[in-house]
Formats: sequence, C-alpha cells, structure tokens
Amino acid sequence: MFIQTLDILGTIAFAISGVLVAMNKRMDAFGVFIIAFVTAVGGGTLRDTLIGATPVFWMRDMTFMSVIAVAAILAMLFRDKLKHLRRSLFLFDTIGIGLYTVIGIEKGLNADLHPVICITLGTISACFGGVIRDILCNEIPVIFHKEVYATACIVGGIVYFVLREFTGDVNLIFLIAGAVVIAIRLLAVVFKISLPSLYKKT
Amino acid sequence: MFIQTLDILGTIAFAISGVLVAMNKRMDAFGVFIIAFVTAVGGGTLRDTLIGATPVFWMRDMTFMSVIAVAAILAMLFRDKLKHLRRSLFLFDTIGIGLYTVIGIEKGLNADLHPVICITLGTISACFGGVIRDILCNEIPVIFHKEVYATACIVGGIVYFVLREFTGDVNLIFLIAGAVVIAIRLLAVVFKISLPSLYKKT
Amino acid sequence: MFIQTLDILGTIAFAISGVLVAMNKRMDAFGVFIIAFVTAVGGGTLRDTLIGATPVFWMRDMTFMSVIAVAAILAMLFRDKLKHLRRSLFLFDTIGIGLYTVIGIEKGLNADLHPVICITLGTISACFGGVIRDILCNEIPVIFHKEVYATACIVGGIVYFVLREFTGDVNLIFLIAGAVVIAIRLLAVVFKISLPSLYKKT
Repeated sequence: MFIQTLDILGTIAFAISGVLVAMNKRMDAFGVFIIAFVTAVGGGTLRDTLIGATPVFWMRDMTFMSVIAVAAILAMLFRDKLKHLRRSLFLFDTIGIGLYTVIGIEKGLNADLHPVICITLGTISACFGGVIRDILCNEIPVIFHKEVYATACIVGGIVYFVLREFTGDVNLIFLIAGAVVIAIRLLAVVFKISLPSLYKKT
Repeated sequence: MFIQTLDILGTIAFAISGVLVAMNKRMDAFGVFIIAFVTAVGGGTLRDTLIGATPVFWMRDMTFMSVIAVAAILAMLFRDKLKHLRRSLFLFDTIGIGLYTVIGIEKGLNADLHPVICITLGTISACFGGVIRDILCNEIPVIFHKEVYATACIVGGIVYFVLREFTGDVNLIFLIAGAVVIAIRLLAVVFKISLPSLYKKT
Repeated sequence: MFIQTLDILGTIAFAISGVLVAMNKRMDAFGVFIIAFVTAVGGGTLRDTLIGATPVFWMRDMTFMSVIAVAAILAMLFRDKLKHLRRSLFLFDTIGIGLYTVIGIEKGLNADLHPVICITLGTISACFGGVIRDILCNEIPVIFHKEVYATACIVGGIVYFVLREFTGDVNLIFLIAGAVVIAIRLLAVVFKISLPSLYKKT
C-alpha cells in the first residue's frame, strides 16, 4: 500500500516532466499526452520487453494509464502554476527513480538473472523513460551528458545485492536500496556534483 | 479477401509515404527501402512486441515484405510521377490507418486486454510506423504537432466498443469502426480541422 | 572456440566505435558507456525481441557485458592512441558484421522462419546497433546514406542459402557466408564503391 502510493507519485512526476518537455516543443494535446505516457512507462516497458514479461505491465494494470491521463490533463491546464511546484516535482521524480530502480531489480531476480543484469534492468526502468522522451523530442538524451541519474541507480543496485548477503528481509532491502538512490540524487543536485569530465577544458 | 486487399493497399500507401520522406533526406537505396519497410510495419511490430505476439506478424506472412519491396522499388523508379497520385495515396494511407486501428484492437481483444488498452494498441498499430519513420529521419514525429491522426483512431476505437454492446456481428463492427476512422481523417483534412491549440498566439 | 573469439573481437570493435561517436558528442562517462553497449548489442537485442527470444542474449551470457565494459573503459583512457589502431578497428568491425550476420541467420532458421526473414534478421543483427547508436546521438543513421554495409550482409545471406542447397556442412556454410560479407565490405571500402545514387547531380 505504502509502496503503491510511492509508485503512483513517481508515475505522476515522470508524466508531468514529460508534459513540460513536450509543451516546450509546442506539441499538440495528443503529442503532449504521448510524451507524458512514454516518459512515465517507457523504462518499464523496455525492461518488460527485454525479459519477455509480456503483455507489458501497464497493459495488465489500468492504474498507470488512468493516473497518467489525469496527471497530463491537469498539468496541461495548470502549467502556469507548475513552477510553484518545482520542488515537490523534483522530489517525486527522485522518489520515482529510486522506486523504479528497485522494482526493476526485483523483476530481474524473479527472472533468475545475474545481479549485474538485474542492476542494469533497474537502471533501464528508472532512466529510459526519459531517454525515449528525449529521442521523441529530437534531443540528445539529457541523461547522457548532464545528470547524476544513472550513477545513483547503479550504486543503489549494488547496495541492494550487498544487503542481500546480510539479511533476508526483502522489504528492508527494498527500502534501504531505494533510499540510497534517492539520497545520492538529492545530494548530487544540492551539492552540484557531476561525473568527472572526460574532456580537457578548452 | 476484401479486407486483405484493403490491408495490402494500406501497406503500399504507408511504404510509399516512407519512400517519399527518405528520398527527401537523400538517403541511398538501402536507406529508402528500410524507411519504407519501417513505416509500413513499424506500428504493428511495436504492437506485437508489447503484447508478446512473437515472431512479429511480418515474419510469419511473407506477403508484407514482398508488397513493400515492390512498392518501394516502383516508387523509387517513378517518383516523378507520384505527385499525380497524391490524392490516391492519401486515400490509401487513410484506409490503412482505419484498418490498422481495427486490426490492432482485435489483437488486443484476442489477448484479453482492457478496452482502453485495445484502443491504445489500435492507435499504436496505425500511428507508430510514421513515428519511427520520423525518428529515423531525425525529425520530431509529425503526428505530435500537426495532424488529426491519432484522434481519429481513438474515436474509431471508442465506436468499436460501443457497437459491441449492441451487436455480436464482428464483421459489421470492424467495417463501421474502420469507416469512422477514415471519415474523421478525411473530414479533418478537407475542412482543415486540427486539435485546439494549447498555446497562446504570439 | 574460434568463432567465439571472433565474436568477442567483433563486440569489442563495435563497442569502441560507440565510444568514439559518443565522445565526439562530448557525453559524460555514463553516456559513453551506454552508447558503447548499445552499439555492440543493439542489433542482436532487436533481433531477439522481434522473434521473442527473451530474456535477450546478453542477459543470459555475462561475457558480453564484461567485454564491453573493459573495452569502453580502455577506449576512454587511451582514446588518443586509438587513431593508430584505426586499421585494426576497421578490420574487427568488419569481422563483427560478417559474424553477426551469420549468427542472425541461424537464429532465424532455429525459429523456423522463411529465408528472406532470416537474411533480414542477419542484417538487423549486424547493422541496427549502429542505427540505434546514431539515433541516440541525434544523427541520421550513417548506414542510410553512406556505407555499403547492409548490402554486404544481404549478399552474404543469399550466399548462405545458396550453399545450403549444395552442402549440409553447417560450419563450412557459416565460414563462407561470413567471409563473403567481410570481403564485400573490404572491397567496397578499398575501391570506394557505394550504391548507385538515386539522385541527379546538381
């Protein structure tokens, strides 16, 4: 119940981030809705497709589609107000990333995959919605050159498997690993940390 | 038989629209063929992948590949003549959209999915070939900012499920719902109707 | 064993080509790694998804991920030295294309698909890693307008099925068909052969 609530908050935040990017590109209402939808479910859809968990998750549980539709419509109507919510949205978004990471890892474990693959699946779940959003909007995905996003997911994933050596309490592992992802992302943004540059300054 | 003929006409129209976009980008013959192919089968391929109907449809029925190859070669050879066919091509394209929508809905029903998901699958089948075409050509998908395309598919899909409440005649439902999609798209283009803008004029 | 070594060399070459393109776009370390990974496994992943061979190949064999990670890290560290390896890299890349083509064909045969579809799968395996790389980097895929890449795969695929009429020796067919792909690509590059242009000179 608690986790489901978080999941919905994360979905809402992802959908709204899609609305904002799509409206920046001056898409029509249908385009905006599609981008919202893809941002929210794209990562999980790719994950499910790659492991063969079809029909993919949002086809089997109507909650996602309803939540995204409502969120997208509200975001379109009240977009001028959204800037006051910037902080809450960022928080939801970060919670979403943490959750999606751990959910992805657990889907990988259920399919009996190697820990490294599970962490990859977690990262895909959390990050590829944004990647597909950026491709559809004809941008180089922001995650490839700006934000400490995926790094947080990967570290959280490693924590997940380290904890599994010490305890069998699945819920505890879930919460701690998710919290690690969230904490890293928050700290990175607050202290403006990014990956060390590969390029010499010019 | 009748429906199969329509299906082939739709496939041809979609393939030719791919050829035209690709030649505009001055791709080589192979690139043009790929774009033609992807435009024609991309939507159905995504649909089949998402519901797990693999190998995807064009791998199990060679008609599609042959038809697309012939259409693409003819379109490349006679591209200067294509402008005289603009009206027929538009009509075939619109028929294709109507058909693909209903076929997608029925695939969703066969997989026991919720009506909203079935309509989504129909819309994906009809529209995502063009989306993938535009992404491969490095454009923002035209469907996101210009045409009343998806709206026609969605309305047709709703009609499909309303009719199911009144009759069990599957063929009749198929024809009416497909015709609704086609009619909306034709009317929208003739009367230059588009979605109301989300943006203030500047 | 011999073929596995070639496979790994091909994977390395593909990964390095991804690193070079991504660094050209000044992506961060994570972005570079993702592009390297996608270039190396993207084609095979699409192939496995389309035929329903899930979880896709690199989830079931950790060799790929390890090899790509090491290759990407070394390529990032020693990128200034890579220009001295240009010729070897090109050779590995070409070997990769030949191999991936034949592996794709054999996956298609195992799934009982039509020869034309098998050749398509081979071409997808060999070429779509580069296509996805270019899309993620926001470029029109190079394969659509410049290189005799896919043509080599298709000819090699045809040779594969012609040979099957004459011999049952699978290893022999594998080697000859792969060698044909490699030879065509090498000859095309050495003699600067490309597909005849579809466009009048201006």
